[in-house]
Amino acid sequence: MDVPLLDGLATTRAIRRYTDEPVAEADLNRMLFAATRAPTGSNRQGFRFVVLRDGAKATEAKALLGESFRSSWSAKRSHDGYEQGSGEDASSPKARMAQTMQHFVDNFERTPVVVLPCIRRRHGDMTDGASVYPACQNLLLSARALGYGGVLTMWHHAVEAELRTLLSIPDDHAIAACIPIGRPAGRHGPVRRRPLAELVYDDEWGNAAAWAVDPEGTRFTSAGPRR
Amino acid sequence: MDVPLLDGLATTRAIRRYTDEPVAEADLNRMLFAATRAPTGSNRQGFRFVVLRDGAKATEAKALLGESFRSSWSAKRSHDGYEQGSGEDASSPKARMAQTMQHFVDNFERTPVVVLPCIRRRHGDMTDGASVYPACQNLLLSARALGYGGVLTMWHHAVEAELRTLLSIPDDHAIAACIPIGRPAGRHGPVRRRPLAELVYDDEWGNAAAWAVDPEGTRFTSAGPRR
Repeated sequence: MDVPLLDGLATTRAIRRYTDEPVAEADLNRMLFAATRAPTGSNRQGFRFVVLRDGAKATEAKALLGESFRSSWSAKRSHDGYEQGSGEDASSPKARMAQTMQHFVDNFERTPVVVLPCIRRRHGDMTDGASVYPACQNLLLSARALGYGGVLTMWHHAVEAELRTLLSIPDDHAIAACIPIGRPAGRHGPVRRRPLAELVYDDEWGNAAAWAVDPEGTRFTSAGPRR
Repeated sequence: MDVPLLDGLATTRAIRRYTDEPVAEADLNRMLFAATRAPTGSNRQGFRFVVLRDGAKATEAKALLGESFRSSWSAKRSHDGYEQGSGEDASSPKARMAQTMQHFVDNFERTPVVVLPCIRRRHGDMTDGASVYPACQNLLLSARALGYGGVLTMWHHAVEAELRTLLSIPDDHAIAACIPIGRPAGRHGPVRRRPLAELVYDDEWGNAAAWAVDPEGTRFTSAGPRR
């Protein structure tokens, strides 16, 4: 079941519904090994990965995170108008996305694995992320390679202080993300991206690249959030 | 020559020496397509990729960047003591790294392709990077899949203002990185990372994960920069 590299890059998508199957330690090992092969500035490797499974601290942390995810989604659901427009029709893509999100946050505590990638603070700006988000992407891609799925979220934010205390995360490290991982349950939608020509410029900003066209057969290229 | 996904993740490394062979447009297309499949917060896709090849603006931009890379390396070379310790021996890994870096910056203008990934500013902190550095990693991985190589750098920083003017990059977008890409020239070293057990914690910070061990046969696990 080897996934070719280019295929894996093109087909890995956010997975938010998981079976209760635990993630085998041998697979966790392979995922974290892949994650830590990602580049960091000057190869400093200031990243650290706190893996939450079913230990005592993990159980407490997942409960904290579950509350945070539910309140974050609740705020987003109303702010982004998920009940409005096409969202009024329960069979619309927008309404189905809302249902998936609700299920995701309602069952957060049952997520088999939650990874908190941390990074030693250096510049205090976006560029610190260049030494940890490539590793997050490697983690998600390796999950895909092994038949798992996950999603890169920032919804640990509301409980970051409590998490730091609970898990003894030192002040000089930022929690860069919160990545739930598990075996995908049910069917999942496609990777949905704007047409390539809108995202790529040749020679200068705004100059369309003649060679930047979606491969034949590419679907789901609607631009922007669902109406 | 399909590279399996997990292998690709584990073996992609920074490539800084390129042949003069141009990158075929069909390959650029596949790389940028892969890059843009990476996740962004709420799937907003606020990333844009300015691709510099041999156009008029690109030539000017590469000259600006070349100066910036040379001064950045010059500062780093002396600050990080590349001529000291084992660096005094020209055949040491440290001295060879310094030689590769010098060659890289001296020939920057000949780099076949330079990609400037940009991201619409949103939070003004590290988390903005979560919507562009995964795409940078996809770009580097897809280059690897197609027989190219590149490196994630921040050395556009010193000439960012001039670059913005030259390439008409709007103020509400950050230039997240500068990624040179080309066909690898010569031999390249291994992926060198600390032992996995130093990078991964189970259940809480500092708690070694029994399952986090380097796969048998893993080499080049020296921790930290070269002495």
